[in-house]
Amino acid sequence: MPIVDVHTHIYPPTYVSLLRSRKTVPYVRTFADAPDSSRLIILPGEDDPSTPSTSRGRPIGPEYYDIAQKIAFMDQHKIDTSVISLANPWLDFLPAEEAGEAARKINDDVEEICARYEGRLYAFGTLPLSAETAVIVAEVQRLAGLKHMRGVIMGTSGLGNGLDEAALDPVYAALEKYGQLIFLHPHYGLPKEVYGPRANEYGHVLPLALGFPLETTIAVSRMLLSGVWDRFKKLNVLLAHSGGTLPFLAGRIESCLLHDGHLKKQGKTEHRRDVWDILKTNIYLDAVIYSEVGLKAAADASGADRLLFGTDHPFFPPLEEDAKEWHSVTANYGAISKAFKGDDMAAQDVLGNNAVRILKLHS
Amino acid sequence: MPIVDVHTHIYPPTYVSLLRSRKTVPYVRTFADAPDSSRLIILPGEDDPSTPSTSRGRPIGPEYYDIAQKIAFMDQHKIDTSVISLANPWLDFLPAEEAGEAARKINDDVEEICARYEGRLYAFGTLPLSAETAVIVAEVQRLAGLKHMRGVIMGTSGLGNGLDEAALDPVYAALEKYGQLIFLHPHYGLPKEVYGPRANEYGHVLPLALGFPLETTIAVSRMLLSGVWDRFKKLNVLLAHSGGTLPFLAGRIESCLLHDGHLKKQGKTEHRRDVWDILKTNIYLDAVIYSEVGLKAAADASGADRLLFGTDHPFFPPLEEDAKEWHSVTANYGAISKAFKGDDMAAQDVLGNNAVRILKLHS
Repeated sequence: MPIVDVHTHIYPPTYVSLLRSRKTVPYVRTFADAPDSSRLIILPGEDDPSTPSTSRGRPIGPEYYDIAQKIAFMDQHKIDTSVISLANPWLDFLPAEEAGEAARKINDDVEEICARYEGRLYAFGTLPLSAETAVIVAEVQRLAGLKHMRGVIMGTSGLGNGLDEAALDPVYAALEKYGQLIFLHPHYGLPKEVYGPRANEYGHVLPLALGFPLETTIAVSRMLLSGVWDRFKKLNVLLAHSGGTLPFLAGRIESCLLHDGHLKKQGKTEHRRDVWDILKTNIYLDAVIYSEVGLKAAADASGADRLLFGTDHPFFPPLEEDAKEWHSVTANYGAISKAFKGDDMAAQDVLGNNAVRILKLHS
Repeated sequence: MPIVDVHTHIYPPTYVSLLRSRKTVPYVRTFADAPDSSRLIILPGEDDPSTPSTSRGRPIGPEYYDIAQKIAFMDQHKIDTSVISLANPWLDFLPAEEAGEAARKINDDVEEICARYEGRLYAFGTLPLSAETAVIVAEVQRLAGLKHMRGVIMGTSGLGNGLDEAALDPVYAALEKYGQLIFLHPHYGLPKEVYGPRANEYGHVLPLALGFPLETTIAVSRMLLSGVWDRFKKLNVLLAHSGGTLPFLAGRIESCLLHDGHLKKQGKTEHRRDVWDILKTNIYLDAVIYSEVGLKAAADASGADRLLFGTDHPFFPPLEEDAKEWHSVTANYGAISKAFKGDDMAAQDVLGNNAVRILKLHS
């Protein structure tokens, strides 16, 4: 039975070069006081000049860009196939005129990487979302013709104003037409001030553990409320981190919608597809949630046939230098085996069969 | 078998008078162009002068302050006993010198209301959190002596800087000493901009459905990360809305904590009680989550013996004027009966037995 990792990132060499050429966030830089290691700065504020350069952002090593390390990681963790995707922040930051070519280069780079490991690697492509709509749509069409591409990864900002913007409709139409899935992934989190004055004492826990999932939940809720899935009934979205918090909050979202006097007056509470329908028809969830409790809720919300194993590699490596197994990975393996105890078929579906079927791997 | 509602609010007459005397948020006001109804403005921006006065905040009627309406609602929905609490924003906005007396008056008012309906009403008291610590602690002690009080309701701002502030320790110590539970409830939500430029088109759905639960989750995570439960091992907290998103995200919180290099260097990843331990020892969850999926996750996280039925009355009334049953209430009843299908004992525990035991009702 295959094990397929659908949530696993790469910064391919073309992308690292692009980041190295930049002087503002996001960028990669080697600082004079630590010439042997480069730092990846992808979030605003991570390069605060008052902090030592070796505390800014995070060290970027070959695990980020060397595909051989990905393959070694896969072998170590018994992963047969990975569907790799460019990590955040993708190309969100590029000026319109540069985005199209950058996306083509990066997608070709990733496609070539996949071809080197036939059967073991597939990918989600990257769209030049800051470019003109026609350029974005052309790249959707082009990706559909690349052998190893199985959809696109997207952040939550869309063309710059979120995924509920009507100007995205041509992109959604193209993705629906070419049967390409969106892997929706957070990057921006929440404004720092929501974590309070002592947030720095808690490392990166609050933005990573809470900000990321909430960003995803807000984005998908905005899509839902703006009627994206009423207009594009076959648009499929794979949500990172088991949907952020969507499985848990779906009932509250639906209840708040049904009890909203303003929306009722505007006729928006009726004649729409409800959250549960969309969860079971258009949404897939990865299984990157690190607990049996969360995984069961994800399975209850979307169905075990729509859940897909993932690792989030190369993020969350073990902190012990000599560790071979990654706790972050074994936590997700463990959650699957506990949540589906006594139902090996469902566990195997989540571990790989669902991905093979949904993403048409090996075909 | 008793049915007990632990999440049900009141603005007692003393509190409404206080809000009527104010000219800035929060306040209650009757506008000249709609003299027959008063508006309750409790959130910043709800009184934007560019909107008609009849769209500002929400209408406030007797269901907010007339206890007879609460009792009628309870009878309609077969609720035997309610543990009433002041609704947000409590006394967060008061200057220090006024808070102590206001809290005493309101608590006495609520105590007297409970006494009028012996056996049917208990309450969570309100603390004068903007007052000096000694005044807050004195009110904790005083509440412990009032017959119908069973703990305190608190927002997420604590003394003004969140629930992870060391200055709160004397308050936590007093609550622990007198065995009083904190009912932790959101009010401030998240900054408006996180919902994007089209948020107004979605009524109040995003702030209510997502902002409130995330506020609770951030608050309880900050308590956890600051070691509140390492210092106060018997401090009990009832989390509104089934914990916000804590049951779903607990695994991710724990994983992010264990993988944080900064925290590890500071020795903060070891020798601490983990999220799951605290969920099963110090945290209770209400059952106000409107879905079987969410309720099961809450039960999985804390145990069905720590889940307590609630309604959020008088919020989320039915929009149909002739409706007698509240959908928001039947949704929560339905979630309990589906989640515990085949286990009537667990369902009855959640509906009332847990509350009777945990809050020592009728004793």
